[in-house]
Amino acid sequence: MQWGYTDHMRIARFSVNDRPQYAFVQTDENDGKDYLVALDGFPLGAAEVKPTGERYALDADGVRLLAPIIPSKVFGLAKNYQAHTTFMAEKGLSDIKVAPEEMVIFTKPSTSVIGPDDPIVIPSFSHDMNFEPEVAVVIGRIAKNVPVEKAMDYVLGYTCVNDVTLRDVQGFDPMWTRAKGFDTSCPLGPWIQTDLDWTDARIGFTLNGESVPEASGSTAGLIHSIPAQIAAISQFSTLLPGDVILTGTPNASGTLKPGDEAIVSVEGIGDLRNVVVAG
Amino acid sequence: MQWGYTDHMRIARFSVNDRPQYAFVQTDENDGKDYLVALDGFPLGAAEVKPTGERYALDADGVRLLAPIIPSKVFGLAKNYQAHTTFMAEKGLSDIKVAPEEMVIFTKPSTSVIGPDDPIVIPSFSHDMNFEPEVAVVIGRIAKNVPVEKAMDYVLGYTCVNDVTLRDVQGFDPMWTRAKGFDTSCPLGPWIQTDLDWTDARIGFTLNGESVPEASGSTAGLIHSIPAQIAAISQFSTLLPGDVILTGTPNASGTLKPGDEAIVSVEGIGDLRNVVVAG
Repeated sequence: MQWGYTDHMRIARFSVNDRPQYAFVQTDENDGKDYLVALDGFPLGAAEVKPTGERYALDADGVRLLAPIIPSKVFGLAKNYQAHTTFMAEKGLSDIKVAPEEMVIFTKPSTSVIGPDDPIVIPSFSHDMNFEPEVAVVIGRIAKNVPVEKAMDYVLGYTCVNDVTLRDVQGFDPMWTRAKGFDTSCPLGPWIQTDLDWTDARIGFTLNGESVPEASGSTAGLIHSIPAQIAAISQFSTLLPGDVILTGTPNASGTLKPGDEAIVSVEGIGDLRNVVVAG
Repeated sequence: MQWGYTDHMRIARFSVNDRPQYAFVQTDENDGKDYLVALDGFPLGAAEVKPTGERYALDADGVRLLAPIIPSKVFGLAKNYQAHTTFMAEKGLSDIKVAPEEMVIFTKPSTSVIGPDDPIVIPSFSHDMNFEPEVAVVIGRIAKNVPVEKAMDYVLGYTCVNDVTLRDVQGFDPMWTRAKGFDTSCPLGPWIQTDLDWTDARIGFTLNGESVPEASGSTAGLIHSIPAQIAAISQFSTLLPGDVILTGTPNASGTLKPGDEAIVSVEGIGDLRNVVVAG
């Protein structure tokens, strides 16, 4: 696959009978439904990937979407929307002391990543696990010391993320390593959308079938823009293809309890659904 | 290679004419020198690895030690020795507010790892880069929810680490993502020693050929022991083979400037040497 071939594509990772593969997601003109067009390789590799000739309906037996990427690393931004910062301050939940113009950058380990429909497991040591719906950026090319004006050239695409956070753990975990890095804390999916209006992507959240408007927003409200984030991170760390940046949650967050169904929606990408279980 | 085969072994990763390989480091009985006994695979894999029959002197032409492992993730502990905590407080450098019994756990990305003799590059945005000599633990088996009394069963071995830290950046980087995660901030090596008295491993530091006794110590002074660290981290995150835990720096740290030669020494492991360059 040549660079640029992925314009207007949705790239998924899925398993059929437990065999992981990559696919393009394509809408059938006849039935209007989305299908997984299986690929013979990894769309981020140097070699061209071709369709295998196999096509699967999303709801076919034995077919399961996986996290669209296993990143070598995940960076995230906190306090990147005024509405969320205000919400946190009003709840008395934030005691980070940095100037507002500074980026608050955290990490999640690769082992925190799960895919669509995978369970989010509440660690036994937490009693206040929160949802944070966000747009995630997936890096497409090695990026180091990238200027802001070239930053978007390094993006493969975008996916939905739930930046699941143990609010009660943040207080005794100053680096948020446990609070934001526990296993299952980084649901990604349903696929990578290569074409998105990243300047005004609308983010929504649905809890147990009910829309949560106070958690919603748009990337138009980002304090630090997506290119600014890529440029700043690439100033200290080499971003590799498949690495992910969580761009920040736009508004209020709230508690997830065992049995809850959490859906992060980004207009133009799709829905990322997960259920919550006790650990 | 069977599990247990690595008792009393030193496992190295090296390149000869730029081809990376693994090796056991063995001392020749005749000349008393260490040699790299090349292996046909990866000593952490499921398959048995065998010597290829090739042996290299450490100082042979074209032979270069590499970081002994490329971890999927690196965890580190801060404030894990009283002498270091006192040093930081006296310098007015520490404003983390957690109870002393809490572990302060941070992460470094895999892209921060470098090997012996690789340059540590000072990022252009920092003017106070510090050394922190430590013992690093290398995980050998998948570890989740491991009890303290079984934790040492999950260790492959130990290596030296310089937990290089941008002291001036910590003040505006609350998660230390930049301060401890920048490229080249995690020199590891010279090899993995599988057999070490981890209850009293002596750590030393040498700057430009002069020993720095105020930076030295022993793991006997750890506040949170190595098994306690493994148990606590495995409570929230699945540790994979090759993952690394930086156990904490024992005492004072200090500034590294361009041209400096920094050597971390752990008795029973060896010396990890790096030079410093301006970014």
